[in-house]
Amino acid sequence: MSGQRRVLVTGANGFIGRHALRPLLERGFAVHAVTRGKPPPDEGDVHWHVHDLLADPVSIVHEVRPSHLLHLAWCTEPGAFWNARENVHWVAASVRLAEAFDAAGGQRAVMAGTCAEYDWAGTAAVGQLAEDAPLRPGTRYGACKDATRRVVEQIVPALAWGRVFFLYGPGEDQRRLVAAVARGLLAGERVPTTAGTQRRDFLHVTDAGAAFAALTDSEVTGAVNIASGEGTAVRDVVAMLADAAGRPDLLDVGALPLRPGEPDSLVADVRRLRDEVGFRQRWALRDGLADTLGWWRR
Amino acid sequence: MSGQRRVLVTGANGFIGRHALRPLLERGFAVHAVTRGKPPPDEGDVHWHVHDLLADPVSIVHEVRPSHLLHLAWCTEPGAFWNARENVHWVAASVRLAEAFDAAGGQRAVMAGTCAEYDWAGTAAVGQLAEDAPLRPGTRYGACKDATRRVVEQIVPALAWGRVFFLYGPGEDQRRLVAAVARGLLAGERVPTTAGTQRRDFLHVTDAGAAFAALTDSEVTGAVNIASGEGTAVRDVVAMLADAAGRPDLLDVGALPLRPGEPDSLVADVRRLRDEVGFRQRWALRDGLADTLGWWRR
Repeated sequence: MSGQRRVLVTGANGFIGRHALRPLLERGFAVHAVTRGKPPPDEGDVHWHVHDLLADPVSIVHEVRPSHLLHLAWCTEPGAFWNARENVHWVAASVRLAEAFDAAGGQRAVMAGTCAEYDWAGTAAVGQLAEDAPLRPGTRYGACKDATRRVVEQIVPALAWGRVFFLYGPGEDQRRLVAAVARGLLAGERVPTTAGTQRRDFLHVTDAGAAFAALTDSEVTGAVNIASGEGTAVRDVVAMLADAAGRPDLLDVGALPLRPGEPDSLVADVRRLRDEVGFRQRWALRDGLADTLGWWRR
Repeated sequence: MSGQRRVLVTGANGFIGRHALRPLLERGFAVHAVTRGKPPPDEGDVHWHVHDLLADPVSIVHEVRPSHLLHLAWCTEPGAFWNARENVHWVAASVRLAEAFDAAGGQRAVMAGTCAEYDWAGTAAVGQLAEDAPLRPGTRYGACKDATRRVVEQIVPALAWGRVFFLYGPGEDQRRLVAAVARGLLAGERVPTTAGTQRRDFLHVTDAGAAFAALTDSEVTGAVNIASGEGTAVRDVVAMLADAAGRPDLLDVGALPLRPGEPDSLVADVRRLRDEVGFRQRWALRDGLADTLGWWRR
């Protein structure tokens, strides 16, 4: 096994992480996966490590001595994560993790950033957000991710920073949009939504996991949008779910107010992901939503 | 002593730190000063702590439980600090220090930033650099300071960030401009300099120390330039030193090449320091340079 690339994956049992492990194995990596809680039972080829990175982001690096790092762990509680204090703890832990990784001879790191790093004012005018679009995080989450990138790119020369847009798919937290709507429809409940005119860039989470694996396996550095490149109005996403469930009658579009400050459009330019990383997504949105609904039905 | 404000000063035996302690005492603070090396013998009212912040930025906070934090420690070796790897370690240590300070009930933090956070391209056209001028650090030092500010302002709500421009004065490292020229002149050696047309904002270090004390004692938050607000060509600084030494004959102006990428002008807008903090500098440049020469003579 000498010479095999060894990747340390943090947040490995999270929404994205779970879908990155198999693609990493398929690309020939030895996969060392970190989770705070109980690891899943069904990934026989993955080396699981139960470890609290916030308490100690250093010793796991010395233990595993990875050649590659895929750092996905962060606070993600729906709603709360935007301004949670824990964002700050993740900055400190991520910086120390990067330092330890580099000091231990690590070669290449990939970390999860966010579309919330971009300036959301006037994004409709901008059209698709390329990686060099103006940055102006409006939340603590965005600010902490942005600051982490600025520091870590000083630490690890070969750093790729995957800016995640909007994800959906199996295993999503039930408080998030697609999961909440899918479950409501399947339960036969009325589903109130906003007017849903805002356009967002949705990607199936298995595509997001595969994209992070491809990025880890590439030599691309700097910021790379992890997204589909296509904008869809939220009301159309909800309508596709309702169609898949056969219950368009349950929707109450416009029953909820838009959150103040929500931009009209958040859609990625994905040329770096497509042309430089060479990634192609597998799920068209309508099919991916139907797949997700089926997962919740099961 | 109940209710007395208690300030933890890091880098307290450094170039700026030494000159901040007395002004802090005069403003009624109990002063806890941290240094890695041997503390100076002559500051009877200062509580010295010999401590390595890079190794452990947390326990000193628990020990002192400061209400105020003045964080000046950073890597400062002339020349090397611009791109030293140690900058990154100071980011991590500073973030952990801020976290510990806030968690321990700290009220207000002041940290040393740098004019190297600003975009240096086209600064001549900008004129004086106000705190809201574009940021675009061109060095690891500037990038790490900038990133530290972005994180720490998420941690400590009452944060002031003093962007230091060019300092000179007693105790300066002998490899830096004013100290090197002063010592050369006093030794009767020929002193080669660049053409020295670049304009810089020079402040006497005792004024810088007093400015940081005033900023600590204020309620001003955000970035505040620590500078004089006046631009002086480097050749004029050198000429003032030579005049004070009575040896203008020793200067070889133009004998050294300018460093590539040196901007024509780096001069601060100091309205925040003057009008909001209420600080007035004591040393005019010519007098301050003569004072510094006298210090080296002694």
